[in-house]
Amino acid sequence: MSKYDIIVLGSGPGGYVTAIRASQLGFKTAIVEKENLGGVCLNWGCIPTKALLKSAQVFEYLKHAEDYGLNVKEAKHDFDAVVKRSRGVADGMSKGVQFLMKKNKIDVINGFGKLKPGKKVEVDGTEYSADNIIIATGARSRELPSLPQDGEKVIGYREAMSLKKQPKKMIVVGSGAIGVEFAYFYNSMGTEVTIVEFLPNVVPVEDEDVSKQLERSFKKSGINIMTSAEVTKVDTSGKGVKATVKTSKGEEVLEADIILSAVGIKTNIENIGLEDVGIVVDRDKIIVNDFYQTNIPGYYAIGDVTPGQALAHVASAEGILCVEKIAGMHVESLDYGNIPGCTYCSPEIASVGLTEKQAKEKGLDIKVGKFPFSASGKASAGGNKDGFVKVIFDAKYGEWLGCHMIGAGVTDMIAEAVLGRKLETTGHEVLKAVHPHPTMSEAVMEAVADAYDEVIHL
Amino acid sequence: MSKYDIIVLGSGPGGYVTAIRASQLGFKTAIVEKENLGGVCLNWGCIPTKALLKSAQVFEYLKHAEDYGLNVKEAKHDFDAVVKRSRGVADGMSKGVQFLMKKNKIDVINGFGKLKPGKKVEVDGTEYSADNIIIATGARSRELPSLPQDGEKVIGYREAMSLKKQPKKMIVVGSGAIGVEFAYFYNSMGTEVTIVEFLPNVVPVEDEDVSKQLERSFKKSGINIMTSAEVTKVDTSGKGVKATVKTSKGEEVLEADIILSAVGIKTNIENIGLEDVGIVVDRDKIIVNDFYQTNIPGYYAIGDVTPGQALAHVASAEGILCVEKIAGMHVESLDYGNIPGCTYCSPEIASVGLTEKQAKEKGLDIKVGKFPFSASGKASAGGNKDGFVKVIFDAKYGEWLGCHMIGAGVTDMIAEAVLGRKLETTGHEVLKAVHPHPTMSEAVMEAVADAYDEVIHL
Repeated sequence: MSKYDIIVLGSGPGGYVTAIRASQLGFKTAIVEKENLGGVCLNWGCIPTKALLKSAQVFEYLKHAEDYGLNVKEAKHDFDAVVKRSRGVADGMSKGVQFLMKKNKIDVINGFGKLKPGKKVEVDGTEYSADNIIIATGARSRELPSLPQDGEKVIGYREAMSLKKQPKKMIVVGSGAIGVEFAYFYNSMGTEVTIVEFLPNVVPVEDEDVSKQLERSFKKSGINIMTSAEVTKVDTSGKGVKATVKTSKGEEVLEADIILSAVGIKTNIENIGLEDVGIVVDRDKIIVNDFYQTNIPGYYAIGDVTPGQALAHVASAEGILCVEKIAGMHVESLDYGNIPGCTYCSPEIASVGLTEKQAKEKGLDIKVGKFPFSASGKASAGGNKDGFVKVIFDAKYGEWLGCHMIGAGVTDMIAEAVLGRKLETTGHEVLKAVHPHPTMSEAVMEAVADAYDEVIHL
Repeated sequence: MSKYDIIVLGSGPGGYVTAIRASQLGFKTAIVEKENLGGVCLNWGCIPTKALLKSAQVFEYLKHAEDYGLNVKEAKHDFDAVVKRSRGVADGMSKGVQFLMKKNKIDVINGFGKLKPGKKVEVDGTEYSADNIIIATGARSRELPSLPQDGEKVIGYREAMSLKKQPKKMIVVGSGAIGVEFAYFYNSMGTEVTIVEFLPNVVPVEDEDVSKQLERSFKKSGINIMTSAEVTKVDTSGKGVKATVKTSKGEEVLEADIILSAVGIKTNIENIGLEDVGIVVDRDKIIVNDFYQTNIPGYYAIGDVTPGQALAHVASAEGILCVEKIAGMHVESLDYGNIPGCTYCSPEIASVGLTEKQAKEKGLDIKVGKFPFSASGKASAGGNKDGFVKVIFDAKYGEWLGCHMIGAGVTDMIAEAVLGRKLETTGHEVLKAVHPHPTMSEAVMEAVADAYDEVIHL
């Protein structure tokens, strides 16, 4: 029986990053994967959607070429080619992980791994043992009872990424990151898209100002939005699909070719042997301590299967911390209050920390600053005037409580806020860190200035 | 005679920002401007060039639409429309400054201001007095004796921004930010461009790795580059222009329609009364102390006319500090070692702090990390695999000495390094600040990890 220092179950951005860090730290490491290396993120999530969205972004430029002094005849998209490009990018990334596994001398065990008591993992009949087993099996699209997925007319993100034929009409149920990204993509490609959101605002985890801005931008680009609305019934018996949507105004029946269900995730914790080993699970999540140990010594869990935010970068960070702790390094536990979230539709959304509402609910005395890109020189030059940066500071202690951005390229700008918050910056220090001109990033400095009544360009 | 607390001479990003901050602090403020509000930056520099470059960027997408699964017939540019858009953006920004002056109750005095002894300024025959006079008259394109500008065949950036007719062939002398931005723009529009750089590398102030990457990218896009090369003679007598270029291999005569001279700047310090007042000037710059006081009490100078980096954001920061100090606020002097520099060609360049060579020349023991965008998932998805992030840390004390980026969107990413350096971050803290996935900004985290042998995706 092969013996390892560490076996990682699942090769998503949690698992494969964990395995690499483990190998760097000198552990003999194996990783178990039943499909392609890279998990959902690389194969069916983060990466291929960004490829689709890039095609959409470029297509928008083609459609609006005249705004930039350019002319095109017949701007068209080739839906197959767009999807093929995305699949190609995903394949390339998965091969990249293969290369990284080899380079880091990590054994890749193909198959479905099942935990066994005594720190063992069984993969298709073969047993492997390890001093430490790390569960990183991730999650999949959640199914609502009222909206069962048949993979044809009612689909999840996975099918939405590789449809053979572009739908003419699509209903997107749920307006979290996945929902709005696909809504934007399909709308841009010419599909008639309706978003149905149960809560009063789209992207409901974001600051309300962000939600309202996105709703305005989306409506301007032709996406239909129904909020405080619920799909209560679906009829797939005809040619397309009929969805009964309940709103405060009553019931309405929408027709479409396809419904995309994007109502969150369900963890992959079934049949992996948690019960055999006795690992405690609470409401779909594996319970772990600050360094990802489960209740059973030698068994750890990281990523979507644990209670933190179900995001690729959280899974990676957790995995790294987990093995660094196993290696006896002095590590601080992860600050889940300083995890950025990004949504890559257009305008992009990026945020970290408390929303204005959350800060007020905590009873904090706050200073709020906001700088619209309409007042930014770079945004004007780039034709990207939609959106803003909003910052929230504690009025008493100066702590940077939250940063909320919507606009072009903001997903690459949020790192400043994350690092600043980690380093416990004050607003004044952000203000006196000279931001280059002309950039979109100046809006961060100006929003902070606005919070302290020192804004220049408003 | 009108009496002010503060009169600002010149309304570029130094002057107008200074005036706004002065007004915020309660000073009765006037600003003197002989042309459009906003100075070179808004009217003939930062902003309109970014508009031109945006058109070029979109035009590149049009030309390479197939890479994204899209098709166009006849992608064309309308040179007039591209220039017109740029002028429109500049006009809009200048009107914005007009609005800001009004809103902040700043008197705008149109005309050429001349300093007088006794804290007075004369503008076209009318005298104004102030307790504090701030000189912010900026700079213009420098002329080389061997390359006199006639504004027709041998031009500066100002003419390059609003040519009536697109040249077929252009020689760009000098490869600083202005030179390479125009080289990129005109090449993208279809002009045959040759860069002539006196020093051994293009963008010679940047880290050598950045220079080499830009040279590779530019050559790939069809720009001719001659380094260690000097224009010794220009003949404009014929239809076009002939430039004699001296290199180590001997002399060569290049023909073109237009030569763009982009060899730096010359400060606007002539005829503004410096001699009358007795203000000390050294080698084209007004000498000031840490808070921008000249040798004559009551007279200050900020921006390009002073020795710091000749950049818009430096001028703004200096002006703000200058009036905050006048207001008696407790302010720290500007850290000129933490000023970011940005170049907006494609790939973009952004950097702050020491280059590897500079760090070695200082005798520092350094750790260098580098992460290529070719290994970034977001870069793959976006089709932006050119470039990298390079970081330099002090091996002994952990200080973040320098950060050098080349690639898509990096000008919006450098703020993280500026803020981190201001807050005296360590590499480890950057590493443990969770960067969102998938973003280009992860490359910063990975480059830092590389410096400490903890890189994951290499």
